[in-house]
Amino acid sequence: MRVLGIDPGIAIMGFGFIDKTGHRLTPVQYGCIETEAGTPTEIRLKQIYESSCKLLDEYKPDTVAVEKLFFNKNVTNAFSVGQARGVFILAAAQRGLPIGEYTPMQVKQAVVGYGAAEKRQIQEMVKMLLKLTAVPKPDDVADALAVAICHAHSTVLHDRLNGVTHS
Amino acid sequence: MRVLGIDPGIAIMGFGFIDKTGHRLTPVQYGCIETEAGTPTEIRLKQIYESSCKLLDEYKPDTVAVEKLFFNKNVTNAFSVGQARGVFILAAAQRGLPIGEYTPMQVKQAVVGYGAAEKRQIQEMVKMLLKLTAVPKPDDVADALAVAICHAHSTVLHDRLNGVTHS
Repeated sequence: MRVLGIDPGIAIMGFGFIDKTGHRLTPVQYGCIETEAGTPTEIRLKQIYESSCKLLDEYKPDTVAVEKLFFNKNVTNAFSVGQARGVFILAAAQRGLPIGEYTPMQVKQAVVGYGAAEKRQIQEMVKMLLKLTAVPKPDDVADALAVAICHAHSTVLHDRLNGVTHS
Repeated sequence: MRVLGIDPGIAIMGFGFIDKTGHRLTPVQYGCIETEAGTPTEIRLKQIYESSCKLLDEYKPDTVAVEKLFFNKNVTNAFSVGQARGVFILAAAQRGLPIGEYTPMQVKQAVVGYGAAEKRQIQEMVKMLLKLTAVPKPDDVADALAVAICHAHSTVLHDRLNGVTHS
């Protein structure tokens, strides 16, 4: 089963595709969608949407997971991230993909086993779990892979794929 | 020239199309896109996107305007509104429409001439300026029409239509 994890953002949107075979996780492709500062928001959102569609159609995930909320960020930032997240979710919904949502704390819990883990610990665990030679850069890519790992480990995932709905 | 104003939201997205001929404003169509609570976010965003596309293709505005930010609302709400706003902006951008953004204060200033105006004052001015027989309901519709009026009055609008970019 192929899982796509997303760390949404308007300037940098991290993505990570991983395959789950039994308990084994294998990285497939990861990187980020970047848009230029100074470009009008509507153009940046269109670029994010088009890149998201392209990635979804090329790597065909069975399910996707997106970071839910940054409680420590301000309202303006939440608004901006929300917009980028909305267009990605639209692209996934148009393809009928089940979508999981996880808070940063849930991701940390799933990846490190500790909800207050440091960013550095997450990154090292992502590297180890996916047998990568280095921590993926920028941070948004490591975060996206962490979300994918969290989703792959989640029981919600299995329920979702079996048609059980979680609100 | 036809202007579309939008008051974004995930449960209710108000819209208002008005025609501007010289200094005269005429309402064309207004109402709201509603999605049901309890429906998964991805489905609601898809519904908002599809309804937005349909409205844009049916009423063919020359330009659109969207409320910018609710400084008094919390982060969770900003995130949710941001997602809905993102998919509307995408639909507009895909049609190459110029997009104006205004804060609630700018809208109040343009419609009532006073940035700290009460909601009720805005609604009465919208009713008067558009020669409506009653204040449009729900509030989101009156707010959307207020944004459209603000955009119609804005000098930015004229610059935008003449290809001048505002960041």
